[in-house]
Amino acid sequence: MVGMDDVYAVILAGGGGERFWPFSTARLPKQFLTLFGPRSLLTETVERVRSLVPVERLLVVAGARHAPLIRRHIPDLPRGNLLQEPAGRDTAAAIGLASVVVERRHPDPVMLVFPADHAIADIRGFRRTMRRAVAVLRRHDALVTVGVRPTRPETGYGYILAGEPMVGAPGVRRVRRFLEKPSRTRAVRLARDPRCTWNAGIFAWRNRTIQRRFAALMPELWGRLCRIRDAWGRRNGGGVLAREFARMAKISVDYGILEKSPDVVVVPAAFPWDDLGSWSALERVLRPDRTGNVVVGEHVGIESADCVIYGTEKPIRTLGLKGFIVVDGPDGILVCPKARAQEVKRLRQAPVRRRR
Amino acid sequence: MVGMDDVYAVILAGGGGERFWPFSTARLPKQFLTLFGPRSLLTETVERVRSLVPVERLLVVAGARHAPLIRRHIPDLPRGNLLQEPAGRDTAAAIGLASVVVERRHPDPVMLVFPADHAIADIRGFRRTMRRAVAVLRRHDALVTVGVRPTRPETGYGYILAGEPMVGAPGVRRVRRFLEKPSRTRAVRLARDPRCTWNAGIFAWRNRTIQRRFAALMPELWGRLCRIRDAWGRRNGGGVLAREFARMAKISVDYGILEKSPDVVVVPAAFPWDDLGSWSALERVLRPDRTGNVVVGEHVGIESADCVIYGTEKPIRTLGLKGFIVVDGPDGILVCPKARAQEVKRLRQAPVRRRR
Repeated sequence: MVGMDDVYAVILAGGGGERFWPFSTARLPKQFLTLFGPRSLLTETVERVRSLVPVERLLVVAGARHAPLIRRHIPDLPRGNLLQEPAGRDTAAAIGLASVVVERRHPDPVMLVFPADHAIADIRGFRRTMRRAVAVLRRHDALVTVGVRPTRPETGYGYILAGEPMVGAPGVRRVRRFLEKPSRTRAVRLARDPRCTWNAGIFAWRNRTIQRRFAALMPELWGRLCRIRDAWGRRNGGGVLAREFARMAKISVDYGILEKSPDVVVVPAAFPWDDLGSWSALERVLRPDRTGNVVVGEHVGIESADCVIYGTEKPIRTLGLKGFIVVDGPDGILVCPKARAQEVKRLRQAPVRRRR
Repeated sequence: MVGMDDVYAVILAGGGGERFWPFSTARLPKQFLTLFGPRSLLTETVERVRSLVPVERLLVVAGARHAPLIRRHIPDLPRGNLLQEPAGRDTAAAIGLASVVVERRHPDPVMLVFPADHAIADIRGFRRTMRRAVAVLRRHDALVTVGVRPTRPETGYGYILAGEPMVGAPGVRRVRRFLEKPSRTRAVRLARDPRCTWNAGIFAWRNRTIQRRFAALMPELWGRLCRIRDAWGRRNGGGVLAREFARMAKISVDYGILEKSPDVVVVPAAFPWDDLGSWSALERVLRPDRTGNVVVGEHVGIESADCVIYGTEKPIRTLGLKGFIVVDGPDGILVCPKARAQEVKRLRQAPVRRRR
C-alpha cells in the first residue's frame, strides 16, 4: 500500500464558463450547479478527493467572488485552504499559486490536481488510479497525467499520445505528444488508436518538480509566484497577490509546462469520465427515453426525438423537433442544435434584440 | 347612405383553441389575449363593430365560463346582450341562438356576424364593406359573405369561388362553391384565380332569411332553437337552454347552411385581413427584422433566421435555429417549426413525460 501522508490535493474550481447557460453564468459556474444529480459537481469532486486525503491537506483554488459559494459547498474546509484568485488566469497560475502555498506547509509533498467540474462515477476506480499515480512518483521523478480510454471520437477534448512503457510500472507509459481538440477525421483515428487517451486534466507530481518546471519554462510567472509566496501571510500579502496575479499570463499548465516537458507519463484511468463540457453531455449522464430524448422536467413531444429537454419550472412542448437542445433556466431560455452545444458560450457576446 | 337602424351585430366569441399555447388555453382563448398589440382581439373587434351599430344592438355569444372575461373586455355591454353558451357547439348553434334572441327585439332586423379573434387593420375599409353588405340586403334577399383577396396560397383557410355578378351591385357576385382548406397545389391555383377569395367568416343576412334556412336545412337544430326561444326569460329558460344546447349538432354555419343555400353572395372585402390562426401569423402582423426573425421580448441569436421568438418573461437565446417558433408563456414553453404551427393544438393530447 502506497503512503499518502505527504500527499496534498488541489481542486481547481476557478472555471466560469457559460456553456451551461441559462443555468451556468459567470456568477454561478457549472461546478456549483446540481444539473446532473442531487449534488453539485464540486461537492462530488470534494467527496472523491477526500477519499484520498483529509480535508486539512485539500486546497481549493477559486475566484475570489466565489469564496462564499465554496464555503457553503465545503463547510469544513480550513480557512487557509481556500486560495482566492483575484482574477481568472487559467490553470498554470492556479496550480502555481497552490504550489507556493503548499511549499510553506511541507518541504516536498506530492501534489494531486483535480478539475472541480467533471463527472467520475466510479469512486473506487478513481482511488485506485490516483494511488497508482502516487506509487509512480515514489519511484520516478515525473509529471503524471491521467489518460481516459476514449469511448467516442470526441473533438472537444485533448488527447494524449503515449510512447514507450515505463519499466516496472505496468500500463504506465511515457507521453509522446499532447494533441489538442482534433478535427473530426483525426478524432475518429485517435479514438481507435490504443496509444491514445483523453487528457482528463488530472495530474500528480512532486511539488519541487513542478516548481523546477515553472522556473525553467515559465520564468516570469515563476518570479511572480515567488513574490506572492514571500509576501504570503504578511501585511501586504493580499496586495502582492492581487498585483502579481493580474499580470500573470493566461496559460494552461498543459500548454505552459506539460507539452514542453520530457518526463511526462500517463497513468490509465480505471474509471469512466466525462468533462460535461456542454448540454449535449446530458445524454451521456442521464438515460435517453425510447425516442432518444433526454428529459429533465416535464415534456410533451410530438415527432420530437434525440433532443435534450431541460426545464424544471414549467412544461416544455415540442413538435417536429429533432436533435435539439431546449433549456429553460433562471436566466433565460436556450434553443440550439445538439451538434452546436459547444458554441453556446458565443451567445454571451451576441447582440440583444428587443421588441415591445 | 344606407340605413343602419335595424341592423344588429353578433360577435362570436366562443372559440377556445390552443393554437396559441402557451398563451391561449381553454381557460383563456386567443380573443382575450393581447399577443399582437396593446389591446385584445375582442376589444378591437368590438371597437370596429361599434363603428357600425351602437352597443345596444351588439350581441356577444361566448362560453358561459368566459362571461366574466367578456364583461371585463366590454364593460358597457347590456347584460342581456351577452349570450352564454352552456357548451361549445360551433357557429351554426351560436348564430342560431343569437337569431332567436334578436327575433324577440325586432320583427326582421339585418344581422351581421363577426368572429371575435381576427385581425382587420383598416377600420374604414371594414365599415365601407359592411355598409355595402347591408345595401345588398336592402335590394336582395340573400346570404352575404365577405371575401378577402388572397395574398398567399394559404392552405389553412376556406376559399369562396364566385360565379356570375349580381345585377346592380358592382363587384358583388353569386357564390358558386365553398372550398375548405385546399391542398398546397390547389391553394396556389386558387390564390391566383380572380374568382377566388378567402372566407373571412363575416356574414350578413336578414334574420328571417337565416331562420328559414335553419328550418329547411337543419330542422332538428331549429326545433331546439325554437324551444330555447319560447322559454327565454322564463323561470325554466336556463334549464331549457342548457338541455337543448348540449344536444345540438357541432356544425359550422358554413357547412350546415351556406354551402347548401343557392342564394349566397360574396361582397369583396375592402380591408386586409388575417385570421391569426397560429403563431406563424405573427410574422404577418409584426415586422420581421433584417434576419427575418419576428421578436417580441428579448432575443439573442446567432445564425438564427426566419423565426418567431415570443417571450416577455426572460431572454431567449438561439443558435443555429432557422424557421422555428419559440414561445415562452405563462403555461409553458413551445418549440416547433413554423411550417407546423397549425398542429400546436395536437400537443394538448400528447402524453407527458416527466423526469427527476
